[in-house]
Amino acid sequence: MRFLKAHGTGNDFVVLPDPDGALDLTPDLVRALCDRRFGIGADGILRAVRQDGSWFMDYRNSDGTVAEMCGNGARVFARFLVAEGLVAGPKLSFGTRDGVSEAVVEGAEIAIAMRRPRLLGRGSATLGSLTLTGESVDVGNPHLVCRVPDVSVIDLSAPPVFDPSSFPEGVNVEVVSADGRMRVYERGSGETLSCGTGACAVAAVLLEGSNGTVPIDVAGGRVTVTIESERCWLAGPAVLVAEGTVSVDQMLAARPL
Amino acid sequence: MRFLKAHGTGNDFVVLPDPDGALDLTPDLVRALCDRRFGIGADGILRAVRQDGSWFMDYRNSDGTVAEMCGNGARVFARFLVAEGLVAGPKLSFGTRDGVSEAVVEGAEIAIAMRRPRLLGRGSATLGSLTLTGESVDVGNPHLVCRVPDVSVIDLSAPPVFDPSSFPEGVNVEVVSADGRMRVYERGSGETLSCGTGACAVAAVLLEGSNGTVPIDVAGGRVTVTIESERCWLAGPAVLVAEGTVSVDQMLAARPL
Repeated sequence: MRFLKAHGTGNDFVVLPDPDGALDLTPDLVRALCDRRFGIGADGILRAVRQDGSWFMDYRNSDGTVAEMCGNGARVFARFLVAEGLVAGPKLSFGTRDGVSEAVVEGAEIAIAMRRPRLLGRGSATLGSLTLTGESVDVGNPHLVCRVPDVSVIDLSAPPVFDPSSFPEGVNVEVVSADGRMRVYERGSGETLSCGTGACAVAAVLLEGSNGTVPIDVAGGRVTVTIESERCWLAGPAVLVAEGTVSVDQMLAARPL
Repeated sequence: MRFLKAHGTGNDFVVLPDPDGALDLTPDLVRALCDRRFGIGADGILRAVRQDGSWFMDYRNSDGTVAEMCGNGARVFARFLVAEGLVAGPKLSFGTRDGVSEAVVEGAEIAIAMRRPRLLGRGSATLGSLTLTGESVDVGNPHLVCRVPDVSVIDLSAPPVFDPSSFPEGVNVEVVSADGRMRVYERGSGETLSCGTGACAVAAVLLEGSNGTVPIDVAGGRVTVTIESERCWLAGPAVLVAEGTVSVDQMLAARPL
């Protein structure tokens, strides 16, 4: 089975080219491929299937579940399509479970169109011994963006504590300093190197609801967010690190029970 | 650059075939390749170099440092040599910084000859709130093997505390139950899925200094240790999971500062 290993600002993926949709990509196979010691290792899988004359991004989380969308994954997927000559750049589009995604290749950077973040008002969460107040932002998923003097001293080792009536489906918590450095605690994952929707939420707060462009430094590198009236562009590096073939039977046979 | 991704009971490696010794394998390149998100991801690198008519295993830790020997790495290296047709099996040998290693391919298992463990007497270490007494064992590196009723309840989340006059170079601490299940805290690494020398140390303690064969269940699978008068064999699975090519320039360019 052919694969590529790739990342967008440290959010990493195994890409599986599967034009005819022939792969039986079970949750167990997803977990095995994403296992960092017994498999290839990744935060998620991007299966590329040809469907109705265009390409479809079948995204799976490393735990085997299906997800609708992943901003950094979509940037990596666009890089893959163009690098393999499957789609002509610099502008392209492809299908996701959340609808059609538009992307633009700009040299080493790939920009992907996201939902325009919606500012919902004040909210708060407690990180370790520190209770922070910030802006609640909807980017299709819920965020709380908190301005802090220095992001490096914030404790993101444990899940944020918050009022569940404010965030009934949980919340991703971002801390950001005036120079555009951000860190993020992702709902269900913990602190991560990069979060695409989180960067868009942070940009919306830094721009105070206006349109404009802001660079955001996440732990895994720099992304640039441009907020327009109808949508938001997330731009940043998307890198194909390696490609090759996986020995699926050998991989599955050698896992501990 | 060609690579393979492989593991022995969950101890995982990037294998770099480099017959002519042409690769400039700097510590920085090792760290980049072993990075699990920006590179391929591994506990270490096994570079295969042809030297004086035989193969040499150039082993590197993921932090870029050089190590003399790695039991699970040697089993993976033997699997690679035989699978690629570079050496005929089932018996083979190759060079390491610790001298010539002998290996035997037995189907899905690879056995590697290790030093015979030497029992050095009693010792103790504190794990969390629990002080355990065990056997001090030398397998080229220092071990403390502690028998416990149930390995699953032992706290290996923090470094063991011990008397530095007993273990001046630190110590790897193994806990083992009567059914041969072991867990290990590796000096400098933390709890790991597997430790080859640790399994040999545990077997020596279970055999109470006699020769014999014992299966040992590590977190990453089962190994079998056979202690003979002059040496010790460590047998277990060694699996080539994937192979392909790395885009070194792209990988190095996209890492955060």
